[in-house]
Amino acid sequence: MSIINFAVIGYGGMGSYHAHNLIPAESTRFHVVGTYDISGERQQISKGKGLHIYESLDEVLKDGNIEAILIATPNDSHKEIAIRALRAGKHVVCEKPVAMNTDELDEILAVVKETGNVFMVHQNRRWDPDFLIIRQLYQNKTIGDIFQIETRVQGANGIPGDWRHLEKHGGGMLLDWGVHLLDQLLWLVDSPVQSVHSDLSYILGDEVDDGFMSYITFENGVRALVEVGTTNYTKLPRWYVKGLEGTAKINDWDLSGEIIAATGRKDVAAPTPIQAGVGLTKTMAPPSEEATEKLAFPEPKADFVPFYQNFYEVVREGAEPIVKNEEVRKVLKLIDDIFESCHKG
Amino acid sequence: MSIINFAVIGYGGMGSYHAHNLIPAESTRFHVVGTYDISGERQQISKGKGLHIYESLDEVLKDGNIEAILIATPNDSHKEIAIRALRAGKHVVCEKPVAMNTDELDEILAVVKETGNVFMVHQNRRWDPDFLIIRQLYQNKTIGDIFQIETRVQGANGIPGDWRHLEKHGGGMLLDWGVHLLDQLLWLVDSPVQSVHSDLSYILGDEVDDGFMSYITFENGVRALVEVGTTNYTKLPRWYVKGLEGTAKINDWDLSGEIIAATGRKDVAAPTPIQAGVGLTKTMAPPSEEATEKLAFPEPKADFVPFYQNFYEVVREGAEPIVKNEEVRKVLKLIDDIFESCHKG
Repeated sequence: MSIINFAVIGYGGMGSYHAHNLIPAESTRFHVVGTYDISGERQQISKGKGLHIYESLDEVLKDGNIEAILIATPNDSHKEIAIRALRAGKHVVCEKPVAMNTDELDEILAVVKETGNVFMVHQNRRWDPDFLIIRQLYQNKTIGDIFQIETRVQGANGIPGDWRHLEKHGGGMLLDWGVHLLDQLLWLVDSPVQSVHSDLSYILGDEVDDGFMSYITFENGVRALVEVGTTNYTKLPRWYVKGLEGTAKINDWDLSGEIIAATGRKDVAAPTPIQAGVGLTKTMAPPSEEATEKLAFPEPKADFVPFYQNFYEVVREGAEPIVKNEEVRKVLKLIDDIFESCHKG
Repeated sequence: MSIINFAVIGYGGMGSYHAHNLIPAESTRFHVVGTYDISGERQQISKGKGLHIYESLDEVLKDGNIEAILIATPNDSHKEIAIRALRAGKHVVCEKPVAMNTDELDEILAVVKETGNVFMVHQNRRWDPDFLIIRQLYQNKTIGDIFQIETRVQGANGIPGDWRHLEKHGGGMLLDWGVHLLDQLLWLVDSPVQSVHSDLSYILGDEVDDGFMSYITFENGVRALVEVGTTNYTKLPRWYVKGLEGTAKINDWDLSGEIIAATGRKDVAAPTPIQAGVGLTKTMAPPSEEATEKLAFPEPKADFVPFYQNFYEVVREGAEPIVKNEEVRKVLKLIDDIFESCHKG
């Protein structure tokens, strides 16, 4: 099988992470040839790493040696770069969020159809170990049918200091982190969304949202609470998931947490009322010791190949993409709807 | 000052807790004379404690020695008992939820007005130490203006096994525990509710809700997430509260938890990006060490007298009640609205 030569468009934090960490450089499948970035400083860094410096996007697109590009520029430039690259005969890997809205994405997808080239969005967090654990619990019914999913990321640093503060570049946390959490969720639950209630946060005074909370119900009965925060000095768990026979909590990306499951034993004592504040409660008392047990987390395993391996197989072997464009569109449509409903109030 | 003689109507879990723990028996202010309960078993227990056994509510109401009653019967019987007692010239302390809905409460309040007798609802969780800590943070702006409040109680025992399973008796968790959390919240925030989005849980198959989630926005900008769960084998914190300058988390009634606040120092290093799952993030990276500090919780102090002391002062000295009937009505109206919106879907 022949190597796919890549050029990286936008050699910032994510672009350089792709160039040096994600695109599997040691394999016989990929080679990162060069980068295009408008910043002279970034060009120098790229040169220092031995990569070719392209002077313009045109120069990349005219380079017959380049078969695929990675787009890691600000969100508002994805559409134009993607369309020009597809029309120039390149395959495209695009950072998330794929575009500013579904109208833009539909323009891209029309050109995908027209050209037959591959266009794949880097929804890499489908491979996050914490998500893979939740996915296994969901699919294997380890704690019974899962009916409630709370998925949160919380930081205390506000919005990072660059174009992510600006609306015209597609800044804000719903597009930046929301797209990850919603992509994971919709892929996991795989049932039509029935209702969404959202609230965007503007507490930091930026023109874009510094976080949000969304409560989503799915047609299959699953409920989800999705939250991104950038003003959280102490955190709630990354995942809090309720099944009919137990509850799982993953605190953070370090995979600390616990699964507590019902033993189903019939001979257990009723819970003893506890003093709770100035009152008594049986309802909120801990269950008797025999009624529950602690389970170990499953190993975070994916039953699907890594992102770039899949991209290679899609390009060379016509394999099914793991991140499908119709799934990406569904997530972006949900984001469109959240913006619309929140701006209407 | 003369003693107020009490009779306890409904000598179950809460009634006996009032009779023996809450009504200050050692003081010169109160005396619990006797109880009325339809259960022979409960009558025997009451007799064993040296309390007079009333054979009927009428007997209580005709007893000129009784000045006040405590109502701790199932929720659907509060209204009739309260109205008859008020008309019989008794003062009334009523367990929560005060009534099945605001229509019922309005009937009671009309008789309160007509008779001039005291009617106070035992919203005792305004005195909970965890709530008093949150209230001090809110009022003293220890972590700046608080703009987000998450208040949860979570158990793993389902709904307790009696009339609380039944709709006609006013069962379900919104009326049972929701009324506490909403009473605390509305009293704390003291701003009109702007919007409410709620979802009742029926996962256990009861005819009444086994929990709920409500997202509430207030006119002053505060957001609140209120949750009661009875299918939670591991818990989220009792309180999670965000201020402009810090975040507080109280895990449980044991008052464990933490407050992390911004130091406001200008010379702190920017956060270093961390590996998070398969990606990098600066946004969700921990702030640099100098940027935050851990604060101690304030002592849980109330700047208002205990419930029964207040009741005594209201009856004998015309003091202002701490739990005002218009506040109780506001909470019940919110509960009515939540039921209505959820049943409409």
